Amino acid sequence: MTGMRFDHTTLGQRILFGSGQAADNVRLAAEGFGAGASRILLIADAFAAEIADAVVGKVAVVARISDIVQHVPAGNARAAVSVATESGADAVVSIGGGSAVGLAKIIARDLHLPVIAVPTTFAGSEATDVWGQTENNRKVTGSDPHVLPKVVVYDATLSRSLPGQLAVASGLNAVAHAVDGFWAPRADPINKALGTEGLRALIPGLRALGADPDDLAAREQTLYGAYLAAVAFASAGSGLHHKICHVLGGAYGLSHSETHAIVLAYVTALNAPAAADAAQRISQALGKPDPATGLFELRRDLGVVGSLAELGMPESGIDDAVAPILAAAPVSNPVPATEENITALLRKAWAGEDPT
Amino acid sequence: MTGMRFDHTTLGQRILFGSGQAADNVRLAAEGFGAGASRILLIADAFAAEIADAVVGKVAVVARISDIVQHVPAGNARAAVSVATESGADAVVSIGGGSAVGLAKIIARDLHLPVIAVPTTFAGSEATDVWGQTENNRKVTGSDPHVLPKVVVYDATLSRSLPGQLAVASGLNAVAHAVDGFWAPRADPINKALGTEGLRALIPGLRALGADPDDLAAREQTLYGAYLAAVAFASAGSGLHHKICHVLGGAYGLSHSETHAIVLAYVTALNAPAAADAAQRISQALGKPDPATGLFELRRDLGVVGSLAELGMPESGIDDAVAPILAAAPVSNPVPATEENITALLRKAWAGEDPT
Repeated sequence: MTGMRFDHTTLGQRILFGSGQAADNVRLAAEGFGAGASRILLIADAFAAEIADAVVGKVAVVARISDIVQHVPAGNARAAVSVATESGADAVVSIGGGSAVGLAKIIARDLHLPVIAVPTTFAGSEATDVWGQTENNRKVTGSDPHVLPKVVVYDATLSRSLPGQLAVASGLNAVAHAVDGFWAPRADPINKALGTEGLRALIPGLRALGADPDDLAAREQTLYGAYLAAVAFASAGSGLHHKICHVLGGAYGLSHSETHAIVLAYVTALNAPAAADAAQRISQALGKPDPATGLFELRRDLGVVGSLAELGMPESGIDDAVAPILAAAPVSNPVPATEENITALLRKAWAGEDPT
Repeated sequence: MTGMRFDHTTLGQRILFGSGQAADNVRLAAEGFGAGASRILLIADAFAAEIADAVVGKVAVVARISDIVQHVPAGNARAAVSVATESGADAVVSIGGGSAVGLAKIIARDLHLPVIAVPTTFAGSEATDVWGQTENNRKVTGSDPHVLPKVVVYDATLSRSLPGQLAVASGLNAVAHAVDGFWAPRADPINKALGTEGLRALIPGLRALGADPDDLAAREQTLYGAYLAAVAFASAGSGLHHKICHVLGGAYGLSHSETHAIVLAYVTALNAPAAADAAQRISQALGKPDPATGLFELRRDLGVVGSLAELGMPESGIDDAVAPILAAAPVSNPVPATEENITALLRKAWAGEDPT
């Protein structure tokens, strides 16, 4: 441990966690703002209508946005900021996945209103200070302390609206946050400890959720683990895995969670020999001797699709993706990315072969 | 894990960690405030003169306070606020133990100036939003988001000014932050995970520091663990152990760190049978089957004084302390405090007997 050196930023946030408590906890969160949350703008799409109606019964809602579009198109973002201004809202409550909190974040960025986020997936955007919006088919992102939700209200019953298959894929995406954080550019002892704790909750949670989608304790454990993994990832930054998935998702429109679920084992197989500490953390959480094989089997046992080919990536994409991946690969990656090892990695992931 | 329910507040803070980097990291921290840290008030006593002089070479210091008194007497606090106002300071840098950062916190509370804390002990006050001052021999405390230091600069070389004996006692006090947090009123999965990680660093760090006070890697590990333990403790609140030490310290003027070092094993012996999860976390970090015996042996092996009698507590104090301890004991304690079990605990701690 000699020569421990790091620069870590902990983002301040209140976390209210309780199954079936979401509406009451939104009220508690709003009360915590004092006089400053008496006019709530509520963002929730049709899938979240039931919980949104329950929230309306607990806090003073002055406006409601239910038109939520993936990737936060700039036009929708501008419209939402106008609604917030015209309604005189003094706080925003978002209920949903990344797109709902994404819209709330733009309002927070522009008007500095506090956000209470109520996530319904394991995506983790609620734990970051990063906003994103899409203009002319291009995604623009930035970080701003105002966009970090002041309070996150976790209620494991809400993720029941995710079909079982999507729930485990979303959970595996959370596993990728923790794992990729171990070798990301800003990895440090604190975010590694949080990621490790996240894996310790996520892996048994996902295994139990795979066996029984109605197991509420498993959903709680998965949600808790996904939160810690998101905190770790927000602090550590994107590693090689996220750069690869970003390139593939952008070029071929592949499903986000499933791309992450497939690719992770191959990145781990590449890095593990040169990342003993990370390999040990992953292996211990999995209870398996080899981290890459363990991640491969976890995905397979959960019944998530196993190859990029099945997801719809053309075989010709393998060669095309190598150059943009090499351009984006972090220099901090334990094994330097080369044309050879990235091509081999993509070929295996495309075919769904054993990673080791 | 069914029924996971909690209300956790993460305090936002930047941590700059690096041995021999303190002066450069203070500059980095000040630069991070933008234009807002161009007039620094520096708080550092004579023991910290060398590093204080180095800081003066890196940032623009407009005033310097070196008269630092334990427990932050109200008169000193008022004088420090006046110095800050009259010098037109826009940020405060404190170098030292709890008393130095304590004085900075009062300035932050009254003037809302950002604080950069440079700790020289393992006391952990830099990770909390709690201020304290003494007026007419009474300690008044409060919590206020403004007093949390915005940046903490950790440099393990600075704790070398602590004599070896004081260093290990200060480290055992940090162990008590983590352990007592496991059964404190606001214990939750997040602060337990941080406390566990803290113990995993603190215990090997302290053992190595006990063997060789010049082992810098051991000091780094101890400092890192003490920080995590302080974060966990700030979140979880005071458990029975801290209530007992507060009563004893106040009534008999006992040395703070050593009181904690002695009492912890006895509180652990009381609670462990009813706190299986905490007992396992402590045992695993110690690598010992029984957590109370393990903590008792850790203190003994480090050569820290082993009984309240040796610290100067009169035997008659045992009976006198029971009532105030029972009045302060948290209702959340795993084993309800009774006249009988608290008397027995104090008797053993007074005599330095084996805790089990």
